[in-house]
Amino acid sequence: MLMPMSHTVREKKKLLGRVRRIKGQVEAIERALSNEAGCEEVMHLIAGMRGATAGLMAEVVEDHVRTHLVDAGKHPGALNVDAADKLLDVVRTYLK
Amino acid sequence: MLMPMSHTVREKKKLLGRVRRIKGQVEAIERALSNEAGCEEVMHLIAGMRGATAGLMAEVVEDHVRTHLVDAGKHPGALNVDAADKLLDVVRTYLK
Amino acid sequence: MLMPMSHTVREKKKLLGRVRRIKGQVEAIERALSNEAGCEEVMHLIAGMRGATAGLMAEVVEDHVRTHLVDAGKHPGALNVDAADKLLDVVRTYLK
Amino acid sequence: MLMPMSHTVREKKKLLGRVRRIKGQVEAIERALSNEAGCEEVMHLIAGMRGATAGLMAEVVEDHVRTHLVDAGKHPGALNVDAADKLLDVVRTYLK
Repeated sequence: MLMPMSHTVREKKKLLGRVRRIKGQVEAIERALSNEAGCEEVMHLIAGMRGATAGLMAEVVEDHVRTHLVDAGKHPGALNVDAADKLLDVVRTYLK
Repeated sequence: MLMPMSHTVREKKKLLGRVRRIKGQVEAIERALSNEAGCEEVMHLIAGMRGATAGLMAEVVEDHVRTHLVDAGKHPGALNVDAADKLLDVVRTYLK
Repeated sequence: MLMPMSHTVREKKKLLGRVRRIKGQVEAIERALSNEAGCEEVMHLIAGMRGATAGLMAEVVEDHVRTHLVDAGKHPGALNVDAADKLLDVVRTYLK
Repeated sequence: MLMPMSHTVREKKKLLGRVRRIKGQVEAIERALSNEAGCEEVMHLIAGMRGATAGLMAEVVEDHVRTHLVDAGKHPGALNVDAADKLLDVVRTYLK
């Protein structure tokens, strides 16, 4: 019988997918430098990789806020979800 | 009889102090532009003001995490203080 | 007879306009704190002010690159305008 | 006879070294996620990788400003080195 995939496992797959895309971006920067691509291209590739890194961090921070600030097993309903959303909105504007 | 100053009131005075210093920095930028100061000076003043703004945001975010993510009256001890500290460490690296 | 407004004077008016709007935003933060507005509102106002500060910095940096990196009187045509544009594109992604 | 290593070749080696260290950092994040390390560790590793990426970008931007904004062959001495340094100081505060 197939078991439903747990939240954590789904989340982990998504994060690993992001990290592997970032690794591909780093390798593209390495190739561009090796092939003596112009500064413009290299700067553009680095900016793209930085954006993807910010996206990864935003997702890990979100996970952390939603699952670790309060132990939902011991304190069900204690996390103020609206206040957490407002926090994450602010954090995301800084993570861009 | 003098009452001890509450946490909130102390916090508010500190935040207002920060905001007023930022206002002074904005006025210094305004004067520098009016007096046709060099770009270098203007860029330097803006960078200083931006740093002070980041410091203000860091303090408000910290307050928000410590006091609003969990209603401590209803759910005493529910906030994982160590997890909150780790979150704030990360947020501060982005708020610089 | 009316003289045409010089580039510098036009530029200065535009920058002063931006700085004055930022001062208005700082005063709104001051009022929000004085009136004990919620953290959410204060964080939102600070994020807006930070964005406006980034916009001001981007404009001053652009001016600096276009007018001071090369003395166009002594070295007409020496600035590589395309390379300068590429640089400013990158700088803007970081100034957000 | 050994030829002295050109500026460009030295620079390229230095940049490639930085990119390879960043690749190592990305692989450490991948391992941490695969091994179900805590959020704190993952956030810490991402913050380190982001700092290294900012350092790489700062170096490429510096190269770009010093070597491409003015064609030194055609316009020797046209780049205002002091103005370029001031610009790079500002850019570095944003690239942290």
